[in-house]
Amino acid sequence: MRIDIISAVPELLESPLNHSIIKRAKDNNLIEIKVHNLRDYSTDKHRRVDDYAFGFGAGMVLKIEVVDCVISKLKSERIYDEIIYTSPDAERFSQKTANSLSLAENLIILCGHYKGIDHRIREHLITKEISVGDFVLTGGELPAAMITDAIVRLIPGAIGDEQSALSDSFQDGLLAPPVYTRPAEYKGWKVPDILLSGHQAKIEEWLHEQSFERTQRLRPDLLNEGTGQK
Amino acid sequence: MRIDIISAVPELLESPLNHSIIKRAKDNNLIEIKVHNLRDYSTDKHRRVDDYAFGFGAGMVLKIEVVDCVISKLKSERIYDEIIYTSPDAERFSQKTANSLSLAENLIILCGHYKGIDHRIREHLITKEISVGDFVLTGGELPAAMITDAIVRLIPGAIGDEQSALSDSFQDGLLAPPVYTRPAEYKGWKVPDILLSGHQAKIEEWLHEQSFERTQRLRPDLLNEGTGQK
Repeated sequence: MRIDIISAVPELLESPLNHSIIKRAKDNNLIEIKVHNLRDYSTDKHRRVDDYAFGFGAGMVLKIEVVDCVISKLKSERIYDEIIYTSPDAERFSQKTANSLSLAENLIILCGHYKGIDHRIREHLITKEISVGDFVLTGGELPAAMITDAIVRLIPGAIGDEQSALSDSFQDGLLAPPVYTRPAEYKGWKVPDILLSGHQAKIEEWLHEQSFERTQRLRPDLLNEGTGQK
Repeated sequence: MRIDIISAVPELLESPLNHSIIKRAKDNNLIEIKVHNLRDYSTDKHRRVDDYAFGFGAGMVLKIEVVDCVISKLKSERIYDEIIYTSPDAERFSQKTANSLSLAENLIILCGHYKGIDHRIREHLITKEISVGDFVLTGGELPAAMITDAIVRLIPGAIGDEQSALSDSFQDGLLAPPVYTRPAEYKGWKVPDILLSGHQAKIEEWLHEQSFERTQRLRPDLLNEGTGQK
């Protein structure tokens, strides 16, 4: 799998893409990630990639030519499953989307920055828009890193223990149960007895009950989505 | 304002916290951000901060002593408004939460990692749990960077143009209108005539209509939340 990330501030992506799970997946050739600096494609002598917004008093907008230039070059080299733009007004990113994107062969993620990107890019060049939530960030770099992380850990072999990923929140439509480790008692705060009992069948039952109870209490909407979510 | 971020993989935070808006806010003494490496607080000779989960087959859990040790030390030095834990099963982060946290004086953000943290930490030490969405990541580092970014850009003086932040999505309960920049025509794709008309009053009206229409079409839930959202 290959992910091309296009950014006007690629420095922001350096450490998230070069440590932990993503680094290991790259080292093991499970994923190829290329970051493209939008400024390298600017024809402006000052390498500008933004310009004033028509009709707006404030805020800069990423220009269409420079974005079109990178995307066209990439598309001439290989076929992309999706050209993604990260924007707070788009479809909400979810584990379901991560699962589906993890099956892609080639993805482009275009990071927004400043006030946004020229809307014609969204209309004509982007195939999928993703939001990570109802809040405003400086740019799409952190969302792009997050989407990449969520996808990469689903690639077989990327995390040491696939069983662990399967019991994470959302993979089975439920929140994860509470987890505990040693010591069994700390400052009077105790680990639930059942977890120390050694009866694995009863423990599994308790964990499932806890998952269900936590989901019902904290996120009843996940239960209502039911089988459609899975 | 001061934000203390506690992480088992602090390398992931390096570039997001040292460029763009956050860097400028730090340089201008608008914000102080301290990253604490959990491993520095381990009493284990291998600097381990995790251990096997009771009753689970797979996945490691952050230990309570080491987390308690950092948090206790920080709490002995100053009063914290909130001790935040990033977890996918928590309250969803939103612009409203960012607005409210931007008024805090001192915040701690504890990044989860591996299978999670010992649940007793969540019960006894954490005051606020935040999720950035229904998906699983390698750790809470990217969410912590994202929360920090969303908060920092709300501190007066952090972004060059406050007018720009006010017209961002969600600040007025609506999605942002589409934005365009030069050239007015590119490959036959045109900027809407109204934006080139020079009638600022009509432009403002059009932008508001577009915001409303986009919200109604893409996120009707925001309109239903109505005044409660603001």
